[in-house]
Amino acid sequence: MKKVKIALLGLGNVGRGVYNILIKNKEEIMKRSGYEIEVSKILVRSLDKYRGVEVSNDILTTNFDDIINDDSIKIVVEVMGGIEPAKEYILRAIEKNKHIVTANKMLLATEGKEVFEKADEKKVMFQYEASVAGGIPIINSINENLTANKINELYGIVNGTTNYILSKMELEGLEFDDVLEEAKEKGYAEADPTSDIEGYDAQYKLAILSALSFGTKISVDDVYREGITKIKPIDMKYASDFNMSIKLLAIAKENNGELELRVHPTMIPETHPLANVYDSFNAIFINGNAVGDLMFYGKGAGDMPTGSAVVSDIISILRKNIDTKNENPVVKDNLWNKNVKSIDDVESRYYIRLTVQDKPGVLGQITTIFGSNRVSLKSVIQKGRKHDDTLEVTLVLITHKTKEALINDSIDKLHDLRSIKSVENIIRIEDFS
Amino acid sequence: MKKVKIALLGLGNVGRGVYNILIKNKEEIMKRSGYEIEVSKILVRSLDKYRGVEVSNDILTTNFDDIINDDSIKIVVEVMGGIEPAKEYILRAIEKNKHIVTANKMLLATEGKEVFEKADEKKVMFQYEASVAGGIPIINSINENLTANKINELYGIVNGTTNYILSKMELEGLEFDDVLEEAKEKGYAEADPTSDIEGYDAQYKLAILSALSFGTKISVDDVYREGITKIKPIDMKYASDFNMSIKLLAIAKENNGELELRVHPTMIPETHPLANVYDSFNAIFINGNAVGDLMFYGKGAGDMPTGSAVVSDIISILRKNIDTKNENPVVKDNLWNKNVKSIDDVESRYYIRLTVQDKPGVLGQITTIFGSNRVSLKSVIQKGRKHDDTLEVTLVLITHKTKEALINDSIDKLHDLRSIKSVENIIRIEDFS
Ligand SMILES: NC(=O)c1ccc[n+]([C@@H]2O[C@H](COP(=O)([O-])OP(=O)(O)OC[C@H]3O[C@@H](n4cnc5c(N)ncnc54)[C@H](OP(=O)(O)O)[C@@H]3O)[C@@H](O)[C@H]2O)c1
Ligand SMILES: NC(=O)c1ccc[n+]([C@@H]2O[C@H](COP(=O)([O-])OP(=O)(O)OC[C@H]3O[C@@H](n4cnc5c(N)ncnc54)[C@H](OP(=O)(O)O)[C@@H]3O)[C@@H](O)[C@H]2O)c1
Repeated sequence: MKKVKIALLGLGNVGRGVYNILIKNKEEIMKRSGYEIEVSKILVRSLDKYRGVEVSNDILTTNFDDIINDDSIKIVVEVMGGIEPAKEYILRAIEKNKHIVTANKMLLATEGKEVFEKADEKKVMFQYEASVAGGIPIINSINENLTANKINELYGIVNGTTNYILSKMELEGLEFDDVLEEAKEKGYAEADPTSDIEGYDAQYKLAILSALSFGTKISVDDVYREGITKIKPIDMKYASDFNMSIKLLAIAKENNGELELRVHPTMIPETHPLANVYDSFNAIFINGNAVGDLMFYGKGAGDMPTGSAVVSDIISILRKNIDTKNENPVVKDNLWNKNVKSIDDVESRYYIRLTVQDKPGVLGQITTIFGSNRVSLKSVIQKGRKHDDTLEVTLVLITHKTKEALINDSIDKLHDLRSIKSVENIIRIEDFS
Repeated sequence: MKKVKIALLGLGNVGRGVYNILIKNKEEIMKRSGYEIEVSKILVRSLDKYRGVEVSNDILTTNFDDIINDDSIKIVVEVMGGIEPAKEYILRAIEKNKHIVTANKMLLATEGKEVFEKADEKKVMFQYEASVAGGIPIINSINENLTANKINELYGIVNGTTNYILSKMELEGLEFDDVLEEAKEKGYAEADPTSDIEGYDAQYKLAILSALSFGTKISVDDVYREGITKIKPIDMKYASDFNMSIKLLAIAKENNGELELRVHPTMIPETHPLANVYDSFNAIFINGNAVGDLMFYGKGAGDMPTGSAVVSDIISILRKNIDTKNENPVVKDNLWNKNVKSIDDVESRYYIRLTVQDKPGVLGQITTIFGSNRVSLKSVIQKGRKHDDTLEVTLVLITHKTKEALINDSIDKLHDLRSIKSVENIIRIEDFS
């Protein structure tokens, strides 16, 4: 049996998963890769910390030089996260002809260009399946198995924390804040949950997925982003009345060479396969012009699922000839130049929840405003009084398909009406048509 | 732009899809593969037949020698189906160092050993994504992206025709025969539907998937098989009462190195993701010991979805160096020797529908028989009279988990009871626990 040495940068959640899988599935991995893998160095910040995994102190190091200067290490597995020093370490490892596996979505979404190009230049192998949707093999599928297609659309539930929260809100009628607290206690949400609940994590992932799907450079800022903090139980209730579900969707579409990229809470029909993705599960729904509709479903995070992707990437490198130059391009997002539409030009249907004064004429004022913007309303629903003493009611509007700019303009005008107490929420509706 | 010549064996459903995709997505395919692909020869049986696709008569041939003797043809795409002459042609093409793409499940499931080994020996590339579940990249995912896992279980809805029929029966309360007729008219079922409705097609596919998942040789006969022809609307009705759905499932499990391989109608909880796979869609649900639960969902057949897999396989060959020897093993089912359990030893819960005489003591007789076989009954449901004049009623039994052999023995004994008019149906229940 051939032997190979690898190094891990990081021994946190993912690093631990990788390490444990290499032990637990040693026989499978040997047979499938043809190699006995030795983790010869692991970079960490602190040598003393207890990490819940038995690792000999000899292989832990806080000095990257121990790894970069060891020519017997053929693969560097970056699972430390963050942009620096991860980027510097990866670039230096590539320079030394080491192959790379990484799970770092933030790095790839923001500074991917430089590391991909460096890998191409040095002809090392570069794998990053774990960077999006953990254990779901979506990146390799797009890069290798759907290449015959022009991808038309991609819809992803790519953040487990927010899907867990929305699932609880939907199924148990709970308030956002309460579920968030519970999620923190259970370890489903981080102490600072901003990146998840405000959609930044999903934004990174969509930037990566759409760059690969459409073969074009995408900057993270090209992706419109909105989090889930404004969703209320009453929105869930209305959604359910319309046979809809609310999910944080990462949406990418191409129309005539123009892209639409956005992450936001979205009402989708209950009958759509994505509507049945609950708890911390992830799913990516893709439409290709040959393959039609496809969906991938699984665990988007966690030590073992993410470790599964990382270790499978290591095996796929080992199956190729690690001592010869890699002939396959690592850069896959430079085939076309495509424009990204401004969110103002994106078309959608909208759910708009208002608190208005309960008096004659209000509805007329509202429909006049939308009408003057050529926004046509599919339905207007008024249910009961909010408080008996305020004489305010909840009004829900569902629009037909229209441009975002026209909705925004209408909402601005609504704010000027004295009869409109407040615009409580606006949620885009996706019909998948 | 580099150019490459390929040949198609067959221009039926799949061949047409491949040909059309190569034209329609020419630019995508060129950019992604680095090659301009020319289909320089297509093997057919008849030169005159109209096939709904515009192909110059110069490239059609009925003589395989035109392909095998043309050294400029680098890839042979076998989409003709059947065992012979497909097998002979593939073996001869490999001998001439041509790379192979095939969609032929029947060939791979029954005679795969010989062609895989030949490809290994000659070090040509051999791709067969389209052979299972059409456009869903399940084969490459198992072979490349889940390799870090020990796969515990796999459950597939891998036959679109039967899923279409069962969906219609479930959602519209129709009889099997009526839906089958309608499916034939609509082209969802073939004139001779035996291979689909009796589960042979799913049996081939499960043989391929399980050989790859468990890394062991599987003979088609190792896979227990039962079709869907005995399912009645009343079974659908009972399933629904139990919050279950009936699907033709291809099931593979490993326990302590022993495999369980079976294709049969199965009652599954309505809440399981597979229960929501309707119409002609396919889905494969996998549990790996690292990745956890994963599901792949999409079109399992049809010219374009299947063509998507074939053309993506062609691109993946072109991305490697087609002029050097392939170093990666093609044979992936020879890593372990694993035993396949007899169906008699398989454990499951069972739904048993009987017609019995409506008189005192019958229930006691039945429970005594099951009890003597240590089969414990979870519930017994009796609803209304069948015919007022026959004094017969329908009785449905749900068992706890038990061995198939004990069920069969119990059923044999039931047949001896004069009060049992008939054992109408037996359907296995899967709880995914
Ligand atoms: N967690 C998931 O489920 C998941 C899923 C998909 C992708 N990812 C990605 O995987 C990466 C790792 O995530 P994680 O959850 O495993 O992170 P984590 O638990 O915070 O672990 C980070 C590890 O890297 C080490 N590290 C961080 N900065 C370092 C530095 N400057 N020098 C040396 N060592 C350093 C830490 O060392 P100490 O142990 O000494 O602190 C720790 O072992 C991230 O890019 C993340 O986006 C994570
Ligand atoms: N149909 C699907 O959706 C699907 C999905 C997945 C996999 N597959 C697999 O793909 C393969 C092809 O299926 P298909 O549906 O495309 O079959 P098909 O429509 O029956 O087409 C078969 C083609 O092969 C040609 N052919 C057959 N035997 C031949 C022979 N002895 N010599 C020369 N040409 C011969 C036929 O020529 P003529 O045109 O002259 O008759 C025809 O063009 C099968 O292995 C099938 O299992 C099919």
